Amino acid sequence: VASVGELGEFGLIRAVTQRLPQAWAVVLGPGDDAAVVSADDGRVVVTTDLLVERRHFRRDWSTAYEIGRKAAAQNLADVAAMGAVPTALVVGLGVPGDLPAAWALELADGLRDECDLVSASVAGGDVVRSEMVVLAVTALGSLEGRPPVTRSGAGAGDVVAVCGRLGWSAAGYAVLSRGFRSPRVLVEAHKRPEPPYDEGPAAAVLGATAMVDVSDGLLQDLGQLAAASGVAIDVDPTALPVDQPLRDVAAALGGDPLGWVLAGGEDHALAACFPAGVELPAPWQVVGSVAEGEGVTVAGAPYELPAGWDHFR
Amino acid sequence: VASVGELGEFGLIRAVTQRLPQAWAVVLGPGDDAAVVSADDGRVVVTTDLLVERRHFRRDWSTAYEIGRKAAAQNLADVAAMGAVPTALVVGLGVPGDLPAAWALELADGLRDECDLVSASVAGGDVVRSEMVVLAVTALGSLEGRPPVTRSGAGAGDVVAVCGRLGWSAAGYAVLSRGFRSPRVLVEAHKRPEPPYDEGPAAAVLGATAMVDVSDGLLQDLGQLAAASGVAIDVDPTALPVDQPLRDVAAALGGDPLGWVLAGGEDHALAACFPAGVELPAPWQVVGSVAEGEGVTVAGAPYELPAGWDHFR
Repeated sequence: VASVGELGEFGLIRAVTQRLPQAWAVVLGPGDDAAVVSADDGRVVVTTDLLVERRHFRRDWSTAYEIGRKAAAQNLADVAAMGAVPTALVVGLGVPGDLPAAWALELADGLRDECDLVSASVAGGDVVRSEMVVLAVTALGSLEGRPPVTRSGAGAGDVVAVCGRLGWSAAGYAVLSRGFRSPRVLVEAHKRPEPPYDEGPAAAVLGATAMVDVSDGLLQDLGQLAAASGVAIDVDPTALPVDQPLRDVAAALGGDPLGWVLAGGEDHALAACFPAGVELPAPWQVVGSVAEGEGVTVAGAPYELPAGWDHFR
Repeated sequence: VASVGELGEFGLIRAVTQRLPQAWAVVLGPGDDAAVVSADDGRVVVTTDLLVERRHFRRDWSTAYEIGRKAAAQNLADVAAMGAVPTALVVGLGVPGDLPAAWALELADGLRDECDLVSASVAGGDVVRSEMVVLAVTALGSLEGRPPVTRSGAGAGDVVAVCGRLGWSAAGYAVLSRGFRSPRVLVEAHKRPEPPYDEGPAAAVLGATAMVDVSDGLLQDLGQLAAASGVAIDVDPTALPVDQPLRDVAAALGGDPLGWVLAGGEDHALAACFPAGVELPAPWQVVGSVAEGEGVTVAGAPYELPAGWDHFR
């Protein structure tokens, strides 16, 4: 089995590139000084994340494929949270020389397959040597002629709604960190989030006034949105989806399922504000309201995380 | 003096963002899930590089400001090499918790000032903890309605021309690696390249058939261009600019100035092919010719690097 050092930079780039079909939006793909990507309404949405081994992922917990899926997902979700449709990724990859080349190829497969969910593709990148695995993912997207849905547009009287899983990744982390490998559905959710990509642009069309990707935890990300908009947000805990797998594992491990839902990160759900009275389709659930003021409360009061809460970010 | 750990992720992002004015092309700057950048002809040029401490830069050789300038320069040069005008950067930064916050702020100043040369700006980014400093830079650019100038368009009969410094960075590296700090002009050239940004779009307007950023060394990068175009390139060594500082330091250290010019990387000069008979303005110098065949020769023969050549990439 060849290592990336034996394959060499150019050999690795060639092998990776062969696994990456190019989607419609890529005008010029890998192999030149830069790629060229369609930006059909004259603007491009761009977001970047840096992931470092042992801090953002663990090679003994996740396969290369899962790490690729998750790295792509968190960036594609940021594009969706602007109300945009992802078009392409570019990826910087740092690898130790003794890393099996197959690991890098499986990572590329993971990036590719997550992109494929939204008809985007990996349009370019960079491969360098590094003592630990480092992954820098930049995602591009198209607003399709709409204004971006920022964090700063919420107004008093709006409702707050969420879409996608909340707390699943945190519960899966709790399971893994105690040395267990099941329930599988939560472990899988930690290794590979399933952001509701299509609901980002859909929210924009539905008239969302503000939106954020839930990456650091619902309360923290709503806090960012509230601060940017200059409003207060109150969350109704009885309206929050506390899914059955979370209740089950909390009972078994002694965790707090509501804590995971309120403060767990990395699920890449979407939280958005809409004008009162809007008809929201099924995937969206109204979980709170916007008022004048500042900060985020739960049932009208400041929320204290349970003692021993695991801040895993 | 605060460390980045004391300042915290959000404190650092706030302090960095305050130092980053936004240029015309940035529709929505830092602070949201993603930035929005103008892409006025309906396409965007995108390129990314990953830089890892001790492999791509050394904190004991270069200041944070110099590292920021160089990291921006090498990406902006890739945009220019497509015949495009840079519009924005997004930057992922990994930092150890005990790194002085001032170091990160000076890095941001370097990124900002290099962008300022081309009226671009840093439109967004990500800050994470990392054991060593890691810098992921993605540059965007506009083709202003022109086709991209790729590596693959050269044809037999074209001339090969270069623009910008060649060998200066390699000579500066030779000086530094022997423990010297002068000649200052070469040491500075190693720490901070000066790519001829405006000549990229200018070459496109002049009818360049192919172009490449000279980052790995003239012969190696021309080799990439020749392979992509399916042509042979011959370089005339008597036409190459072997600048006086290179001759001086080669005499003093026993180096080979022509070796630096032919194989030294990181100057981010531009090499381009043009149809025979084109009138090239002063910054461009014709240094070779394109024929049918494959590979790169110097004066008609394969070029052997001098013994002991320092492959510093």
